Amino acid sequence: MSMWFTEKQTANFGITAKIKQTLTTVQTDYQDLNIIETEEWGKMLVLDDMVMTTEKDEFVYHEMLAHVPLFTHPNPKHVLVVGGGDGGVIREVLKHPSVEKAVLVEIDGQVITYSKKYLPTIAGYLEDPRVEVKVEDGFLYIANSKRAFDVIMVDSTEPVGPAVNLFTQGFYTGISQALKDDGIFVAQTDNPWFKADLITQVYHDVKAIFPITKLYTANIPTYPSGLWTFTMGSKIHDPQKVKEERFSTINTKYYTSELHMAAFALPKFVNDLLT
Amino acid sequence: MSMWFTEKQTANFGITAKIKQTLTTVQTDYQDLNIIETEEWGKMLVLDDMVMTTEKDEFVYHEMLAHVPLFTHPNPKHVLVVGGGDGGVIREVLKHPSVEKAVLVEIDGQVITYSKKYLPTIAGYLEDPRVEVKVEDGFLYIANSKRAFDVIMVDSTEPVGPAVNLFTQGFYTGISQALKDDGIFVAQTDNPWFKADLITQVYHDVKAIFPITKLYTANIPTYPSGLWTFTMGSKIHDPQKVKEERFSTINTKYYTSELHMAAFALPKFVNDLLT
Repeated sequence: MSMWFTEKQTANFGITAKIKQTLTTVQTDYQDLNIIETEEWGKMLVLDDMVMTTEKDEFVYHEMLAHVPLFTHPNPKHVLVVGGGDGGVIREVLKHPSVEKAVLVEIDGQVITYSKKYLPTIAGYLEDPRVEVKVEDGFLYIANSKRAFDVIMVDSTEPVGPAVNLFTQGFYTGISQALKDDGIFVAQTDNPWFKADLITQVYHDVKAIFPITKLYTANIPTYPSGLWTFTMGSKIHDPQKVKEERFSTINTKYYTSELHMAAFALPKFVNDLLT
Repeated sequence: MSMWFTEKQTANFGITAKIKQTLTTVQTDYQDLNIIETEEWGKMLVLDDMVMTTEKDEFVYHEMLAHVPLFTHPNPKHVLVVGGGDGGVIREVLKHPSVEKAVLVEIDGQVITYSKKYLPTIAGYLEDPRVEVKVEDGFLYIANSKRAFDVIMVDSTEPVGPAVNLFTQGFYTGISQALKDDGIFVAQTDNPWFKADLITQVYHDVKAIFPITKLYTANIPTYPSGLWTFTMGSKIHDPQKVKEERFSTINTKYYTSELHMAAFALPKFVNDLLT
């Protein structure tokens, strides 16, 4: 029998992937968690029927969420990742020698547990001595942090379920207060083909708080439309004015310093969402 | 009953779109041709089970295939489109006032006929007096053309069926001879996630003939992986050295002069295919 997993990315469109085997199916306190092995994308973490990460294309999302803000900041030492229980962003953060401490705040401990068990190439860096893992509510953790971080990355699910609070202006205000005076924040903000309104809303909410607010994109085949956006809010440092000497060689498969700059050149219809 | 069209982009992965209605199903002399209306992407042209174009996202492909070479050339007057019977590239070509004549050579006349009937927003410009439509073999047409064109775009299907000859070094040699001394050629060259070998092969074949050979990308949601590549071969003009004053304002939804430049910044794993 041939088994296929289909994610309906909208009511009328989806992707479908042939399944080799189902590795785990769990209802956690927060969401429906599945890890399946697919023929095309390797192992795949699926939360509430949405692809979160796959072994084959995860590098794009994780590299672009981490390295763009980390190279924009001149000397990031203290980094916070909200969500991201699969550990992929943390793995990329640790490639920066300036980072002394990386805190991961994931509300759903089961995501961490099962990622460690089944996705070691992604989650295997959560044991690093520079990493502190906290299983708690990222919204509350942010609200209780003051001038603590150089860079904060929000690696959340879509704004449904546990992530709803992470797409509010109250959260962005908290982020600003949790950042140091030259801090930088980045969030994944979905795709412009199916979620244009969300991008516009987040952009304006972030822009009301951060002097420098910019959108950048990356191609992620297993995410809706393949074109993903990231919204950056920065207090001082401009991601498009990073000096050439700031970039150092790190081991990546997607990110380059040239692509860092190019990722801010938006398709016209995407740019139009920001005006 | 709910009907869905599924394109298997690889043996183990695909996209699936809910169908509103089937408009036509024809076996032409060259391929299986379907035009369906989908809920998500509007009307969709499907050849041999592969999505060729949809009303909602066609602008990306057509703009990026046309405007990058046309703005790279300082004064394109004579343009040839090989394939492209849906008329989308021609529509974009006609936005350039310097163009005096645009020839479309499509091997399958039925693609033109049905595109005109069902996709008028795409094919409606084939009647323009500057356009000459020829229903014949593009490979032979190229072989019989000498120093005739400023810009040639190859808007073919994948290298199966009638398009096989369009992915050979003999064809690129013919293209070079059909171009004027400062001519430019661009071909769609599929995606780097599933067709890496094809990109490497075409790049090397083109590079053996054209002094300036470069790859650029665009996001096309209904094409495999969402990340599409275009390979450009140019005799003199460098697409990354276009002067700011060359760019004029044209009506686009994806292309901008900033994106023109940014499209050549490749993800590292794509750049690695070219070395």
